[in-house]
Amino acid sequence: MASNQELQLDHDRFARTGVAEAVYAPGKSPAQCAAAVAGLLSRVATGPVLLTRASAPQVEAALARNPGATATPVGEDAHGRPLRTLAWRALAPAPGSVLLLTAGTADLPVAREAEAVLAAYGHATTLVADVGVAGLHRVLAQQARLAEARVVIVAAGMEGALASVVTGLTDAPVIAVPTSTGYGATFGGVSALLAMITSCAAGVAVVNIDDGFGAGTIAARIARQSA
Amino acid sequence: MASNQELQLDHDRFARTGVAEAVYAPGKSPAQCAAAVAGLLSRVATGPVLLTRASAPQVEAALARNPGATATPVGEDAHGRPLRTLAWRALAPAPGSVLLLTAGTADLPVAREAEAVLAAYGHATTLVADVGVAGLHRVLAQQARLAEARVVIVAAGMEGALASVVTGLTDAPVIAVPTSTGYGATFGGVSALLAMITSCAAGVAVVNIDDGFGAGTIAARIARQSA
Amino acid sequence: MASNQELQLDHDRFARTGVAEAVYAPGKSPAQCAAAVAGLLSRVATGPVLLTRASAPQVEAALARNPGATATPVGEDAHGRPLRTLAWRALAPAPGSVLLLTAGTADLPVAREAEAVLAAYGHATTLVADVGVAGLHRVLAQQARLAEARVVIVAAGMEGALASVVTGLTDAPVIAVPTSTGYGATFGGVSALLAMITSCAAGVAVVNIDDGFGAGTIAARIARQSA
Amino acid sequence: MASNQELQLDHDRFARTGVAEAVYAPGKSPAQCAAAVAGLLSRVATGPVLLTRASAPQVEAALARNPGATATPVGEDAHGRPLRTLAWRALAPAPGSVLLLTAGTADLPVAREAEAVLAAYGHATTLVADVGVAGLHRVLAQQARLAEARVVIVAAGMEGALASVVTGLTDAPVIAVPTSTGYGATFGGVSALLAMITSCAAGVAVVNIDDGFGAGTIAARIARQSA
Amino acid sequence: MASNQELQLDHDRFARTGVAEAVYAPGKSPAQCAAAVAGLLSRVATGPVLLTRASAPQVEAALARNPGATATPVGEDAHGRPLRTLAWRALAPAPGSVLLLTAGTADLPVAREAEAVLAAYGHATTLVADVGVAGLHRVLAQQARLAEARVVIVAAGMEGALASVVTGLTDAPVIAVPTSTGYGATFGGVSALLAMITSCAAGVAVVNIDDGFGAGTIAARIARQSA
Amino acid sequence: MASNQELQLDHDRFARTGVAEAVYAPGKSPAQCAAAVAGLLSRVATGPVLLTRASAPQVEAALARNPGATATPVGEDAHGRPLRTLAWRALAPAPGSVLLLTAGTADLPVAREAEAVLAAYGHATTLVADVGVAGLHRVLAQQARLAEARVVIVAAGMEGALASVVTGLTDAPVIAVPTSTGYGATFGGVSALLAMITSCAAGVAVVNIDDGFGAGTIAARIARQSA
Amino acid sequence: MASNQELQLDHDRFARTGVAEAVYAPGKSPAQCAAAVAGLLSRVATGPVLLTRASAPQVEAALARNPGATATPVGEDAHGRPLRTLAWRALAPAPGSVLLLTAGTADLPVAREAEAVLAAYGHATTLVADVGVAGLHRVLAQQARLAEARVVIVAAGMEGALASVVTGLTDAPVIAVPTSTGYGATFGGVSALLAMITSCAAGVAVVNIDDGFGAGTIAARIARQSA
Amino acid sequence: MASNQELQLDHDRFARTGVAEAVYAPGKSPAQCAAAVAGLLSRVATGPVLLTRASAPQVEAALARNPGATATPVGEDAHGRPLRTLAWRALAPAPGSVLLLTAGTADLPVAREAEAVLAAYGHATTLVADVGVAGLHRVLAQQARLAEARVVIVAAGMEGALASVVTGLTDAPVIAVPTSTGYGATFGGVSALLAMITSCAAGVAVVNIDDGFGAGTIAARIARQSA
Repeated sequence: MASNQELQLDHDRFARTGVAEAVYAPGKSPAQCAAAVAGLLSRVATGPVLLTRASAPQVEAALARNPGATATPVGEDAHGRPLRTLAWRALAPAPGSVLLLTAGTADLPVAREAEAVLAAYGHATTLVADVGVAGLHRVLAQQARLAEARVVIVAAGMEGALASVVTGLTDAPVIAVPTSTGYGATFGGVSALLAMITSCAAGVAVVNIDDGFGAGTIAARIARQSA
Repeated sequence: MASNQELQLDHDRFARTGVAEAVYAPGKSPAQCAAAVAGLLSRVATGPVLLTRASAPQVEAALARNPGATATPVGEDAHGRPLRTLAWRALAPAPGSVLLLTAGTADLPVAREAEAVLAAYGHATTLVADVGVAGLHRVLAQQARLAEARVVIVAAGMEGALASVVTGLTDAPVIAVPTSTGYGATFGGVSALLAMITSCAAGVAVVNIDDGFGAGTIAARIARQSA
Repeated sequence: MASNQELQLDHDRFARTGVAEAVYAPGKSPAQCAAAVAGLLSRVATGPVLLTRASAPQVEAALARNPGATATPVGEDAHGRPLRTLAWRALAPAPGSVLLLTAGTADLPVAREAEAVLAAYGHATTLVADVGVAGLHRVLAQQARLAEARVVIVAAGMEGALASVVTGLTDAPVIAVPTSTGYGATFGGVSALLAMITSCAAGVAVVNIDDGFGAGTIAARIARQSA
Repeated sequence: MASNQELQLDHDRFARTGVAEAVYAPGKSPAQCAAAVAGLLSRVATGPVLLTRASAPQVEAALARNPGATATPVGEDAHGRPLRTLAWRALAPAPGSVLLLTAGTADLPVAREAEAVLAAYGHATTLVADVGVAGLHRVLAQQARLAEARVVIVAAGMEGALASVVTGLTDAPVIAVPTSTGYGATFGGVSALLAMITSCAAGVAVVNIDDGFGAGTIAARIARQSA
Repeated sequence: MASNQELQLDHDRFARTGVAEAVYAPGKSPAQCAAAVAGLLSRVATGPVLLTRASAPQVEAALARNPGATATPVGEDAHGRPLRTLAWRALAPAPGSVLLLTAGTADLPVAREAEAVLAAYGHATTLVADVGVAGLHRVLAQQARLAEARVVIVAAGMEGALASVVTGLTDAPVIAVPTSTGYGATFGGVSALLAMITSCAAGVAVVNIDDGFGAGTIAARIARQSA
Repeated sequence: MASNQELQLDHDRFARTGVAEAVYAPGKSPAQCAAAVAGLLSRVATGPVLLTRASAPQVEAALARNPGATATPVGEDAHGRPLRTLAWRALAPAPGSVLLLTAGTADLPVAREAEAVLAAYGHATTLVADVGVAGLHRVLAQQARLAEARVVIVAAGMEGALASVVTGLTDAPVIAVPTSTGYGATFGGVSALLAMITSCAAGVAVVNIDDGFGAGTIAARIARQSA
Repeated sequence: MASNQELQLDHDRFARTGVAEAVYAPGKSPAQCAAAVAGLLSRVATGPVLLTRASAPQVEAALARNPGATATPVGEDAHGRPLRTLAWRALAPAPGSVLLLTAGTADLPVAREAEAVLAAYGHATTLVADVGVAGLHRVLAQQARLAEARVVIVAAGMEGALASVVTGLTDAPVIAVPTSTGYGATFGGVSALLAMITSCAAGVAVVNIDDGFGAGTIAARIARQSA
Repeated sequence: MASNQELQLDHDRFARTGVAEAVYAPGKSPAQCAAAVAGLLSRVATGPVLLTRASAPQVEAALARNPGATATPVGEDAHGRPLRTLAWRALAPAPGSVLLLTAGTADLPVAREAEAVLAAYGHATTLVADVGVAGLHRVLAQQARLAEARVVIVAAGMEGALASVVTGLTDAPVIAVPTSTGYGATFGGVSALLAMITSCAAGVAVVNIDDGFGAGTIAARIARQSA
């Protein structure tokens, strides 16, 4: 009947993958969040450490034990409480610019989480919000930036059409993030996800709904390749 | 690492499409709502400006900075808080009557949002509530109005059968709005949406669940054509 | 135990709705198709009669008994057999131009079915194929036509983004037809349907997947209003 | 390693439930179908025996060993091959009239399977096809029959709105059968099923898609109660 | 721009269908609920009037204006607030017993709403809770009642297997109500709905998830037939 | 009109199946929970009694009437309130070790519920948390334990890949529990459920989302066989 | 541009997991099937080798190169062509009886595939077909076998209720296999899968639809534990 | 009534995006395929031209008019007929190695389509098949290749777990392609898609089911960046 639980942390991921383990906060107690971050900071010698989608008590506990992080608001949980993603020990800026575009203002928290991840890994970013396809001149005005970008992240909810339009305007790889913006048949981002994954424009790949962290991580992997 | 965000507003949409950009409130801060409305009012010379699905704090901020709007209750958000759609600078009434029918009383907020959009564009409307097909004589009593209408909007939840019945009783184009009225296998309006989109009666097209704004907008486009 | 079946035809629909009953061929025997068309032609004094989605044997039987129809290929049934939509007694051309746009060549049969319905009701149409958003200049080249159109029909499969882009470029009402073009997560047109119904651009409404007949019918109702 | 398979037949179901076990043909070999029917006929003293959804080879084998059944076409399998439902030893006619209505001609095979089950149990039926709601006068013309019926079966595909309309026009219990008639977002009958199960009219219950056998069986149970 | 709303009530439904219009409370204001009930009570001469799924403020308002109803708890709304169904002017008891079975205690509110409807129409009922199939002896102990029943209602959540088992044990028509009892892949009652609609036992038909009102209404229609 | 409700408890299940009836708390009043537990404890002579997924008031009432249970936190209900599973009268420890693995810390409550069930039946368990496949060395470090285990339970959310990896590393039967950990397209555990049920590794079977109780029960059945 | 493909076979799986790698035939050429089997037979010293769901040409090629297998019919592919599962080098019979139950005759091919896997691993089996819950006495007649079984496999389509009933009648672990038997809302086995995974009876776990191979494999793992 | 169709080709896409327009064959006649390819070859000066998912008649017509393409088998259409992707005018090999991994042999056609696209753009590739996670040593044996790769493509069906495992073993960006390999609850690739998009490992993005073309295109965009 003995129960022998051992918490397993992944201390060598940065060495192996260039990406430190990010601690996913939901479902953890504030103390577990703080301890997981502390473990990574003390045992992994270099590289950023992230705590993603943390609630206010989790943020408070994590910062009390591990000061010095930057915090980015990343939307709300199912009960309407704000979430933040924290980053410790950002790398020095590296070359390779990443362009982030959002269809609407409501998509900004997702794009900002991606930006926070990229900043932690030292990549320069440009974020332009509110260029949805209903007013096409807005995205057409970004053609110079699209031509220069090494990677493009597109965050869009509703029907997610911006991903297809952008992919047709650039020769950079495009990472699309469906967002839960919208109501009714948007189904919390499912319609945007389906639209992005079935895009008529080749050159785009998709991450999970509202997953700014995932978009930022793969964009960092690509940006590092092109450095 | 520089982050260069620029808010993009679509100032020439009224000139281009005859429809001013409506500001979609969810996901924006109250201040962002107020600023977006102000930007549109100051830079677009004519035509209505709308702020859709705004919460109480968003309404308050938008009206404080931009007085003079009419407000229409349009249901609740996921946490049960009331939403309103605001309209500034309604056009003078134009000819072309639009008939709005609802299956039940619970569908009224959706129909009222459509009515508010049509009013902003100066179109005369007639709204008749509670003519669901379970008591068929109620919709049969509207045959004179159906014969005169240039466009018909049908808002219905549950199984949405009213759209099919109405389409068979009129030669006007019918815009169907599925609503989230009902419970269980209504799936928040999905069953009504599917029923309306697979209607055995041709002459009807469908907008998003609870999307009174979308229904009103396309009805205004049709009504203007027939003016 | 007596079974008393009586086939019911809807002989006064043209008078009531301006749209004759179209006979939906699938599930009917060739003889039933031929008889249904004959019944409508003989008992309804004026206006077009349509037989939609008919297989080769159904077409043959219908034409043998009722010569003089025009036939339009409208894709295939689940077993890969070609389908056609037939029209008898087209009306004389009426004013009011309808613009039909398709994202790809594979969407053409759906657009052609809509065009056939509009032609039967005497409406002038312009059909431009293959203006999908992956090459945005193609749809931008249609801006003059978009400005003149009284109604626009957009047929698109995959992610269906063309509907949103077009709705932002015109002030005419837009009828979107999702098509089953594509594979994988297009789910036979469902992803396009969801994208179109959740469009960030207001002014568009949606009909069933591959339903060129439905799109043509509501477009005819709108075009007649604007005549 | 011994494998000891014993086929289990349910020989006392007619005594227990008033309904003999129907043999569901799909997945059985022709010989298994013939043997299952023979077993029921020899061991159950009275009452009808049914073989449902049988393919041509299954029908042939079953009739060769067990002559004297009546056969009803009930549509096609997934590969387009015709299916039939067979009935042996029908009961003498019993009082209690059942009204069957279909929205379209394509729904007839489903209604006919229900009619065959009711006939086997000796219940008088009236079947009226093609009274779909797009031409409302067709179902309104059935009001006298609706007033007399003790049970009503409604078979409809596409959006299935006929079930709601009929339930509002009668005080008899209504059994709704969604059918797979239609294409696109009908999803093989799912949209009709959802519409019927969420009907705004109380007094209706639903059986499986295309399940004329199930509809006939529960209608027979109701009709027997009212005898 | 005139808006002319007229509330339409269905005052002759009891005469036409033997079932008075039930007022569906969700989406109505307390005052609208009270007025709708008052309208029915004053203008319909006889028969019960129901207000279904009313919140506490709706109940309070309805009773203040229309005293004398019986109230039945029928579960909670999406925000965890209790709902009740009210009935005014119950009929005198009529013959014809209805048996209600639930799989678990959590299914009781649904069965009680059905019981309240049947009571309003004067039908005797027997309710036996907690006879789920995991302990099969519990339902086998009900065989005498199943043999006597003229109609059976089965309320079950999770996998809803009770409906199939009961249908095999009785020759009465069975109305199955899927409930939202359970978690995970029960999907709020969808799995039970699918299981009930695909039952291997013929003689059962299904109403909406948690729809005790609908189950009670069709059972009343059947019970009246057998009176 | 008499309503005769009789609560049915399944008192002989332990004798029949070796597993006492667990009382499922949701939907029951605190008093009903307390009474159901008391009934089982008094009438069933031996073996554990469980109350699963109980809210704080339900726990309090059950313990007040039936002291002496052990309580295990098992996550939250839909409104964010904590749930616990209680166990009375645990059996003496039996041989047969069960290994429980979780992909992340957030999956721990589910694993702990399984562990509580196994402890109640007297089976020794080892629980190792946080061995998700993103850091493969973590699960590879468990190979000795995997070789010794007689049964393995894997609790994982998100994409649930741990189940496939573990099944390929052991010759013990694997019970996979999808959890609702994650957001967006995890759909509350559906994606993990689908991944686990379609595993490329044979030797694994799946229980309901977050169903630690079900996983523990079948593991106890297996462990008893191997004792 | 060099493409260096190397086929990787898993030659040590039997040693590691007690289960040899089964070759999944669909998507492989006949020659690839034959070579994969030959590779396993020559390089793995002991234990059975399986080729699952092979078409006629795949069977022919595999047997031509590797004679001596036993073949079990396991249903059809999407185009109606028969599939078989082959087994080479079955183990000598081992103790530990496994009971296989099917709801209907159509579920037999799935149960037979499970039986073939168990036979290959030397486990005694008893297979009883056609004990579906619509005639409950059929499964009740199996109580003696259920009491003796060390593992039970239940194969059922439609609503899959047999799994719940059986789990309540035995204290052995139950492996449920949903089958694609049925039509309409069975959705090719999805409804049975959902019903089984949400069973009100604890002690059951579920494998993929029609996955007799998976059910047989986990049952073999359990049976070996209890040997 | 004039119909003015103009086929629009996107001749400058290679200049704009570095990727020539690929002609999507399904839904086009053989002659349309041949003409579309010819148009691109004659009007676009440089760079590859692709015809994707072409049937035998489409391939024949395209090659007759445009000789010199390389052809890659890419699976079958819904009727079981083989499809091929053709490439004309491949670029000279460029630096930057891409690693392609498949879980099983059945995933090879998808990986080969990606390889064909990469070859057309001159990128060196390494393809290793059959490294599914059920035998983990197979993918662990690829660690040296994973360390060297600049981009990794993972093609996997069933539960798609390989994508998560690979993403944890490399610091290169990973493009995951779900495939339709498997049956039952794989739902033609949907389960793999959901698993990949919800991966617990960050650094992976997903393209459409079976979309080797899309995976190859974005991998080429990434590889070019890192050149």
